[in-house]
This record gives sequence, C-alpha cells and structure tokens, in this order.
Amino acid sequence: MIVIMKPKTSAKHVAEVISQIEADGYQVNLADGDNQTLIGVVGESDKPFDPKKYEALPGVERVASVTVPYKLASREMHPQDTVVNVRGKVFGANKVQVIAGPCSVESREQIIDIAHAVKEAGAVALRGGAYKPRTSPYSFQGHGEKGLQWLAEAREQTGLPVVTEVMDSNLVPLVCQYADVLQIGARNMQNFALLHAVGESQHPVLLKRGMSSTMEDLLMAAEYILSHGNNRVMLCERGIRTFEKYTRNTFDLNAIPVLKHLSHLPVIADPSHAVGKREYVDALSRAAVAAGADGLIIEVHTDPEAALSDGRQTVSVPQFQQLMTHIQRIAEAIGRTA
Amino acid sequence: MIVIMKPKTSAKHVAEVISQIEADGYQVNLADGDNQTLIGVVGESDKPFDPKKYEALPGVERVASVTVPYKLASREMHPQDTVVNVRGKVFGANKVQVIAGPCSVESREQIIDIAHAVKEAGAVALRGGAYKPRTSPYSFQGHGEKGLQWLAEAREQTGLPVVTEVMDSNLVPLVCQYADVLQIGARNMQNFALLHAVGESQHPVLLKRGMSSTMEDLLMAAEYILSHGNNRVMLCERGIRTFEKYTRNTFDLNAIPVLKHLSHLPVIADPSHAVGKREYVDALSRAAVAAGADGLIIEVHTDPEAALSDGRQTVSVPQFQQLMTHIQRIAEAIGRTA
Amino acid sequence: MIVIMKPKTSAKHVAEVISQIEADGYQVNLADGDNQTLIGVVGESDKPFDPKKYEALPGVERVASVTVPYKLASREMHPQDTVVNVRGKVFGANKVQVIAGPCSVESREQIIDIAHAVKEAGAVALRGGAYKPRTSPYSFQGHGEKGLQWLAEAREQTGLPVVTEVMDSNLVPLVCQYADVLQIGARNMQNFALLHAVGESQHPVLLKRGMSSTMEDLLMAAEYILSHGNNRVMLCERGIRTFEKYTRNTFDLNAIPVLKHLSHLPVIADPSHAVGKREYVDALSRAAVAAGADGLIIEVHTDPEAALSDGRQTVSVPQFQQLMTHIQRIAEAIGRTA
Amino acid sequence: MIVIMKPKTSAKHVAEVISQIEADGYQVNLADGDNQTLIGVVGESDKPFDPKKYEALPGVERVASVTVPYKLASREMHPQDTVVNVRGKVFGANKVQVIAGPCSVESREQIIDIAHAVKEAGAVALRGGAYKPRTSPYSFQGHGEKGLQWLAEAREQTGLPVVTEVMDSNLVPLVCQYADVLQIGARNMQNFALLHAVGESQHPVLLKRGMSSTMEDLLMAAEYILSHGNNRVMLCERGIRTFEKYTRNTFDLNAIPVLKHLSHLPVIADPSHAVGKREYVDALSRAAVAAGADGLIIEVHTDPEAALSDGRQTVSVPQFQQLMTHIQRIAEAIGRTA
Repeated sequence: MIVIMKPKTSAKHVAEVISQIEADGYQVNLADGDNQTLIGVVGESDKPFDPKKYEALPGVERVASVTVPYKLASREMHPQDTVVNVRGKVFGANKVQVIAGPCSVESREQIIDIAHAVKEAGAVALRGGAYKPRTSPYSFQGHGEKGLQWLAEAREQTGLPVVTEVMDSNLVPLVCQYADVLQIGARNMQNFALLHAVGESQHPVLLKRGMSSTMEDLLMAAEYILSHGNNRVMLCERGIRTFEKYTRNTFDLNAIPVLKHLSHLPVIADPSHAVGKREYVDALSRAAVAAGADGLIIEVHTDPEAALSDGRQTVSVPQFQQLMTHIQRIAEAIGRTA
Repeated sequence: MIVIMKPKTSAKHVAEVISQIEADGYQVNLADGDNQTLIGVVGESDKPFDPKKYEALPGVERVASVTVPYKLASREMHPQDTVVNVRGKVFGANKVQVIAGPCSVESREQIIDIAHAVKEAGAVALRGGAYKPRTSPYSFQGHGEKGLQWLAEAREQTGLPVVTEVMDSNLVPLVCQYADVLQIGARNMQNFALLHAVGESQHPVLLKRGMSSTMEDLLMAAEYILSHGNNRVMLCERGIRTFEKYTRNTFDLNAIPVLKHLSHLPVIADPSHAVGKREYVDALSRAAVAAGADGLIIEVHTDPEAALSDGRQTVSVPQFQQLMTHIQRIAEAIGRTA
Repeated sequence: MIVIMKPKTSAKHVAEVISQIEADGYQVNLADGDNQTLIGVVGESDKPFDPKKYEALPGVERVASVTVPYKLASREMHPQDTVVNVRGKVFGANKVQVIAGPCSVESREQIIDIAHAVKEAGAVALRGGAYKPRTSPYSFQGHGEKGLQWLAEAREQTGLPVVTEVMDSNLVPLVCQYADVLQIGARNMQNFALLHAVGESQHPVLLKRGMSSTMEDLLMAAEYILSHGNNRVMLCERGIRTFEKYTRNTFDLNAIPVLKHLSHLPVIADPSHAVGKREYVDALSRAAVAAGADGLIIEVHTDPEAALSDGRQTVSVPQFQQLMTHIQRIAEAIGRTA
Repeated sequence: MIVIMKPKTSAKHVAEVISQIEADGYQVNLADGDNQTLIGVVGESDKPFDPKKYEALPGVERVASVTVPYKLASREMHPQDTVVNVRGKVFGANKVQVIAGPCSVESREQIIDIAHAVKEAGAVALRGGAYKPRTSPYSFQGHGEKGLQWLAEAREQTGLPVVTEVMDSNLVPLVCQYADVLQIGARNMQNFALLHAVGESQHPVLLKRGMSSTMEDLLMAAEYILSHGNNRVMLCERGIRTFEKYTRNTFDLNAIPVLKHLSHLPVIADPSHAVGKREYVDALSRAAVAAGADGLIIEVHTDPEAALSDGRQTVSVPQFQQLMTHIQRIAEAIGRTA
C-alpha cells in the first residue's frame, strides 16, 4: 500500500498518518518530493490494512494498492491451476467441460429426458433450477425440494453430477443433500451470509459474477468462500449489465483471460445468460472456449418454446449437439479437448 | 400486453400464439396490417401472463407491455401516497424526515453519543449497522447482536426509532426484536428469500435500490414484500454503478420524481452512498429534497476520520447540523417542512 | 506522478524506468520497500509526463497520478470562479441564469414567439438548434443558416443572446456570425478538430458532457478550448448513458458540486436531456439549482406536442413559467437569485 | 409502427392520433380492448414516420417499432453479405482479414519497418494514425500529412493498403489522397458532418463503434454513410465503456454475431482497444474469430514499450506472429481461412 498525501499537506497531517500506520503494526517508507509526500506501508501485521480508513484521514489523497485484496483466490499465492473434482469430472484441467440442462426443473420426465439428451451430446454435468430467483413474485418460483429429488434421480440414471442454485443460507444443508455443485446466482454474489454458508459446507461451488460486479468483486466473493477452507470454487462469467439492450446482458469476454491470469480457479462461461437469445449461443460458446474458458454452462431443453423460464435463450437438443461439435473443434485448435 | 409478430410471419405461427393466449384464459384482439400482425391480449385470467414465454414462441418478435408488472407497488392501483408510521414518526407525508447515524455501530458509547447528537440536530430516526456487508472477508463485519442491543439502548435514551440492516433471512426474527425498520441493502435487493422473510415479518422496511437495478427492478422487489401483506415499505435511491469513478456511485436523481410518479411508496434518498465523499453530501441532500424526496438517510459520526467503515463519506456532527439547516430551507421553498 | 513497480521487479527494470524519467527531464524520488519499489517523479520539464508511456515499460504495475491532467480548467490553478459574460449576461456569478427555447428552430415565427415567451418568464438567453445532430439520416436536420438568421432576428427583438450548436469545424465561422454562445453537443465532446476551432474562435462556448464521458474527460475537453486562449467556457451536465432506460439518460447530479470543486468554470445543467420526459423537468431543475448549478438550459415550446424534435422532453410556456417560479424559491433558499 | 395509447385514454386523444397518422400519409389499423387501444400504422408515405413526434402527443404511452430504423444497413433489405474490396483485398468473404500496425505513425522508418513485419506475418492491410484523437491537448497529436506520406510510402514498398483515421470533415479530401480505408474513430461515430463527408467521398470506411453507442446507433451511423451511395462500409467493435475498469473497455463480443445477423456489412474486431492490455490480445483475437468476425485490427509495434501512444495494448512483432498462427487455427476450425 502507498498512502498518497494531497499536494502541500502539512507536516502535522503526514505525521498523523505515520503514527496511525505504526499503531497498526506496519513500517513506513517515506518518499518526500517538492510538493508531495508518499508513504509506503511495509511489513506484516496482525491487523489487516484498511485503505478506506486511511482515505478518511485529513491530508490523504488516496491509498494506492500494490497488492490485490484477495489472497487465497490470487494466482500470486497459488501459481498452479486449481482443478475441481466433482464426482470424477475435473474442471480446470485440459478438457473443456460442459454443464447443460434446462433453466428450471419442470417435471420428473422433463429433467430426466434432458439429462439423457445432454449426456449423449457430451455434457459432463446437469444443470437445472429447483429454486428460481425471479424478478416477479408472480412468476414460477421452482419446484423446490421435489425438483431436487428429480435432479438426483436424473443423476442416478445418467451419472451426471448435478449443478443447482441455492438462494438462501437456510437451504444450504438441504441442497447439499442432493446437489454436487452449489450454484450462487448473480443476484446473490454479494449475499455474504450465503457465501459464508456455502464456504462452510465444503461442497463445490459455481459462483456467478454479479451483473454489476467487477472482476475484483467476484474474486473477493470467492475469497469469502475460500476463507472457510472450501477451495472447490469455480468462477462464472455470465454477462454484465450495460446500456446495450438488444442482448440480455453484455458478455464480458475480457474477463475470461483476465480471471485466468489473476486467479488459479477454473473459469466457466455462461453464454445463455450473457446474450439471452438462443440464436447467438453457439457463436459465443465458441468464443468463450477460444478465449480460454475451462467450461461452459448452457441452457438446453427438449422443447425450448414451452420452457417455463428463459425459453428465449434456451437451445434445443439438436442445436446443442451442433454446439458441442463446434466447440470441440475450437478446443482442439487451441490444444485442448472438449 | 401486445404480442408483436415478426414481419411476414406465417398464419400458422399467428394461430399458434392465439391458441396459447386462449389456453391461458385471455381474449385476443387482432390487428392485421400489410406486413405485420399485432395480437392484443385482453381480459383477466387466473394465470399471470408471462411475456417471456410468448417471446420464446416461433414468429414472435417481442411482447410489448401496456401495463406495469408491479401491481401493489403501483400508483395506478393505489393513487394516494402511502404513509409509513414508525413509532409515531411518519414517512411519506409533508415533512421531510431524516434518518442519521454511523455506518457501523462501533461501541455502546459511540452509538449513544451519536444518537443524542443527531436527535438534537433534528433527525427523527437512528441508523447504524450491526451486521455489515463488506466486500472483503477480512474487514470488520459488525458487532452483531451486541450492536443491536446498543442500538436499542440508544433508542431508549433518545426516543429515536432504529433503522438497521438485516442481511439474511435467518436473522429476521432477531433483528425484528431490536429494530424498528429493517433495512435491505443494495447487494441484497434481489435476495428473494430475504424479501420473503421481511415481507412476512410485517415490520417496516427500507429497501435500497441495487447498484445495477432499474427502477422497475426496485419496484418488483418492493412487490415481493407487499405481496406478503406488508405494506410499510420505503424505497431508497442510493446511487447506481456506472463508468464514472470519481464518485463512489452515480446518484440517479431522476429516480426520485419518477418513483414518486410510478408508486405510492415513500422515497428516501441516501446521498452518503450515492456520492461517497463527505464534502458533497450537503449539496446532494439539498438536491434530493428539492426533487421531492420524502426523507434522507445520512451517515454521521462524532469522529468520521476514526470510523471503522465508510469514513470517507461520513459527515461530522457540525456538518450534519449545517446540512439540516440547509434542507429545512429547501423543504420550505417547496412547501414542505423538514 | 508515482511509478508503481510490480512486486519483486528486477533492479534492472527499476533502473530502466529511472533512466527514462531522467531522460524526460524529471527527478526521481525513490521509495524502496521489502517487496515493492515506488518511484516518485518530481520537478518540472519541458516534456509533458505521459503516464501511458511508462505503463508500457517492463516491470511497471501502473502510474498513480497525484495531480490532475487538466491545468487551465482546474481550480487549483485558478481558485476564483470564472464569470462568463455574454452580451452583459453573466454566468458563474450569484444569479442562476436560465437559457431556454425550442430544441430546433422550426420557423421564423416559432423562434420569435418562443423568444418573447421565455424572456417574459425570466430566461436570460435563447437556445434553438439550426443544425441538428440526429441519430437517423432520415430525420429533420435543421434549417441551417436560415435558422441562424431567425435566431438573430429573435435576439434583435428580445435582446436575448443566442446559444446554438455548431457541429463541424467548417461551420464555426458562420455560426459565430450569428450566435453568442457556441454549443458543443454531447456527441461532439471529443471532436477535437471542433474543440480546436471553437477554441480559436474566442467565442463563448457551452460544452456538453459526452454521454459516456467522465468528469475528467469533460475537463480535458474544456482544456482543449482553454489552451487556445479562449477561457469563456461553460460546462454542461446533460445526463450520461447507463443501464436505466425508463429515463432518456441518467442525470449525474453528483457532477454539479464535483465540477464546481474541481474547476473554476461555470456549470450549467440540462434537465430536459437528462431525464427526457417533460413531467420531470421541473423537479430536476429544482434539484440542479439546489446542488449549486450556475444555470439551466431548458427546452421550451409554445406547442410541445407539435415540436419537430424532442417534443417528449419539451415543456410548454405555462410549465416553464411555473418552473421559473420554483427555481427562484430554491435559489433564494441557498442564498442566490434566479 | 404501433402507437400504444395509455390505459383509459379518452376517445378524443385516440382520434387526434389517428388524424395525425392520416395527415402523415399512412393508414390506421385499430385494435381496441377493454382498457387499451393500439393503433397500427401501415402503408407507405413520403414522410418518414417519426416515433418521437407521436410519443409527444397526449394520451400516447409509447410507439413500438416493428421494423428497424436503418434500411440500407439491414440484412432484411440486403440479404447477401457485402464484400468490401480494398485494392484487391476482400473483407466480408470467407477469409478472416487482419489489419495491423502501430497506433501512431511515429517516423518514416518506424512505419516502413512495421509494415514489412506485419505483412510477413500475414496481415493484409496496414494501420497507423497520422491524426491522433488524444484526450489531452498536451499529448502527441500525430504527424499529420507527413504521416500520411510515410504511410503511402509503406504501401508502395509492401503493397499493403492503408487504413488511417480521419478526424474532421475538412481533412477528408487530403486523407483520401493517401489512404485506402478511412477510419472513423469511436469518439467521432456520431460526428454527422464527418459521416456525411466520408459518405460522399465514396472511399471505403472502417466505422468504429462509439464507446457508449448501442448496436443500433452504430447501424444508424453506417446508414448515414450508405445513404450517400457509399456502400463500402465495415463495422468495427472496439469495446464499450462500462463500470469494469481493470480492462480499458469491455469487449462486447455479443455484437459480432448480432451485427452479422442484423446487417450485411463486414464486421471487424479490435481486441487491442477492447481490452487495452497486450497480454490479453491474443486470447481475445481468437475469441473474435471464433464468434464470426470477418477481420481483426491489431496494434503492433517493433518496440511496443517505446511507442508514442497506446504502448500498453500494443503487441510486439513476435507476439503478432504467434497471434496470426493462433487465429489461423481458429479460422480453420470454423471453416474459414485466415
């Protein structure tokens, strides 16, 4: 950290900042110019260094950070890639892994049929929502535990591990009974009570980026989970909210190579939510793989037009089969498999 | 609702949409042009009309809504202003009401001292966080129940009702024991489990707009609470996230008259978070009142530079006294009191 | 400036950065910690210090600026407020000045009628577009020079100075013949050839903020004009583009006190464009004045519903009269006149 | 177009809207429900139908468009792909074409050396700025006509056509003398005088998306050029401005398949500006090709760290050679060449 003082700050204010730094257990490294003073903060202390506290002191312009605020999530601390193992399927290794399934679990038959179909096309895990975060209280909210049971039955028949969303800390124990991967939705990325609960669960987590969250915010949310000793965390880029409204969200593809660079955690892309219209999901799946994503999560339905939610962005089974062929070619072109 | 078909859609696709509308219990009102077909959806049905379902049908361009998706929150359904009564202090009436206090409850003495100071300056309610949503797991997370107890003690001494954040559905019963108003933070605006729980609590709620939430999203979040029969909901504009980084957020002042127009619920403004730097809080408080806000929520501390959180945007007691004088003049200029 | 080196950078890279700084004519002020090196850049040089050049050097993390990149526009260099005199009307002094008129000059009668009406209501200058930047090439593009002549005639009859947009460097001499203030539209805020031309013209300028421009970008655009010796520049906040689509733009009201703090130039607010719907213009005009704007620019028409452009955000003459009364009260409440 | 009336509008207001539509030369197609009236606008007229004019009428909720406002740019009007031929190099056909070169033309030697290097690596056109749009008036502004001459000389030696920016309508004739493709920069995307001038020039144009422009805005800007009979227009996605600041811009990769779907014009991607850090340019170039871009424009320098502008995002020659190899593999994987 460097505390940057305002130009022409009084010596008294500089001295106060130095006292505070020392009181917090750090050493000071002073750079004094014509007009400006910089105070380097060095050493280790029990107390975390809180930049915002220093920015509130008189005479301080701002605090420039030279280190990232996430530690456990950073590649600096953990140079090798983390590989997350979910019932024998590995995420974060050479193979690009595809999670597929409907937006919502609608019925026992629906989820089982789709599970078979996506498995045959090459998916390695099944997605499906039993608890659905809906903008409107009047929309279908999911089948709840019954939906979880159907997902478990689909897993039994196909061997595909189950990825499903948990929306409340209360529900973590229940969802853990059925799910192999706990999905944290975009709207809950900074629901810290939930992050705490999934951190403690020691269950694998798929953490979706919030729609107005920076990459640093995402890594800090991951840090909450990791700090509970649960290091099976996968990051998911699913589009951010911008002024462009032709598409549902803006797919921040920059985030894929950047997150791979900043962190050791696997990065999964969700083109379905990122673009929101099924006709573009194939092109953006190819792009995500080409940019280095470790996996994809795709909304697939045997009858997308009858889907109870997100039909507009859900691909059909034949479209998904074609998508799988396409991304396999891209994966090979960059020396991976899919 | 109007279902807008793509130009030159086949009669078959039009017929399928009509069948679906009728199956959902609505009547159809057809407008057929040279090149385009519009299908008006009229009447009432038990089934809510789900635009997204129709947008997934073949031949459908999009669904244009002529009515708002929130009903209980809309002014159309409830033309007169809702007045929320909190221990005899009314929000949403002529008087502009100010909630003030520190970001975090830091100690018994701190919260009691500040409560007395803000009361004397004219605040009608006390804010203070006992549970703090922090971006970093390594930052101060609040004193929890102890903090709630200190808040209650401050209320006892000053008579100021207490506004404090609840971050998890689990904690709603506990926070209700101590707090007069449950605050839902920006990061939890779409934590639907929490909205459900505070809806059921029948406790007054201060609902903060999410940082990438539209005004409609905010009203839909309010609808979740209202749909549980809890109509003591206050909306809070606290700034949205944009590309502008000189300020912490972008204060969407448009939202104040727009929300007052679209909804009957009281609208509170939070200039502290909206701008994030204490030197601008006074000007923006004046602006919010001039635009028609029913109240303000302001971060105040007896020693802002020593605050454990949000010190940069917290005003001192003398600054707050001055702010109160300023907004009283503005309130009078628009025919209100403060 | 401080060049922040990456953690654990080699001494060789540090030495290269130092050599480059010295070659550029600056002195170095080194702060060396356990793990990190900071290089303060001090002194004066003929060569401007280009942070981006240094950020491209190996081992450099980033360059932190301690001074603002705009000099002539900064309050630091010019502490007292700049007052822009336009035919005897002063902008940037105690009185809040209102510029009003139609979006487009539609006919001789229209502009003359509106000029009389807005003058009577208290406006001190007349706006009206002769050259119109329209998203579509098929929309009305303005009456061009004829429109300028009508504006000049309206000035002759009412004494109101004329504010009108210039869209191309070619047209600066012509527009200068008729206009008292050259308006630079949001879409041209970074049309540097145009900024150069209006800078050289020595004519007063109303510089609108670009819809995705930061406040710093706006001040840098002003700097282009000021650097040609033309210091009669007024800044205009007119809303930025965000994800919120209920309103035309998002009125960044934070910008008003912030720009007043960072710069000595007058700050004008444009609520008409900032919200885009006439029913909200009054509330936001009040807010802008309460926040410290030195003036307003308001779209007014004798028959808004027949306006050739921007009718949706244009107020009628009676609405404008009322708005003037309202802002006068707000101005008085903050110790100004209007 | 459909004019959507507000619920419960009076018959008088409906009749007025109908009269206006008929006065504008269109026919009316009425759909009348319980509570709402929709007025379809059909037929052809000399007068363009202006939705904004109708939205200003009393009783009108809004105007829903069923057709796109750009005609010449739309794929509907022109189903087959447009192929732009630049000195025998074709853009918009099967081969993915790469334009490469430095941000700025810095010297005769620099541009000639880089031209040879990028040609050898497989680029088909040379980029380089002679006129530079710089945020600061104190930054290097380009060598102007001398730079154009050096570019022409580089073309002579290598055969690579030249792509260079024109920043002002005045300069169009001069730049046309030297350049093969006129680049319109992001900041000038809505400089309508410039669009008009390049439209009239009949020279090929590379039109960069503005940083807060929607895809529709971009297509409307193209429409300005096309409406002058110049149909050699290439669209360029170069990143938009969002809240995410780790990268220079947010690469809106969704725009690539969407623009290809909406329009027949070639789509070029600019990963250098879209991400702004050289280490990520390779991954994002691969992604853009995978998503269907017809070409790339890449900043390359023989000594990126000494570049006078944009060094941080400029790749070296060896990095560019590698990038070319990578995108060739991706192009093949999707059945194209590069």
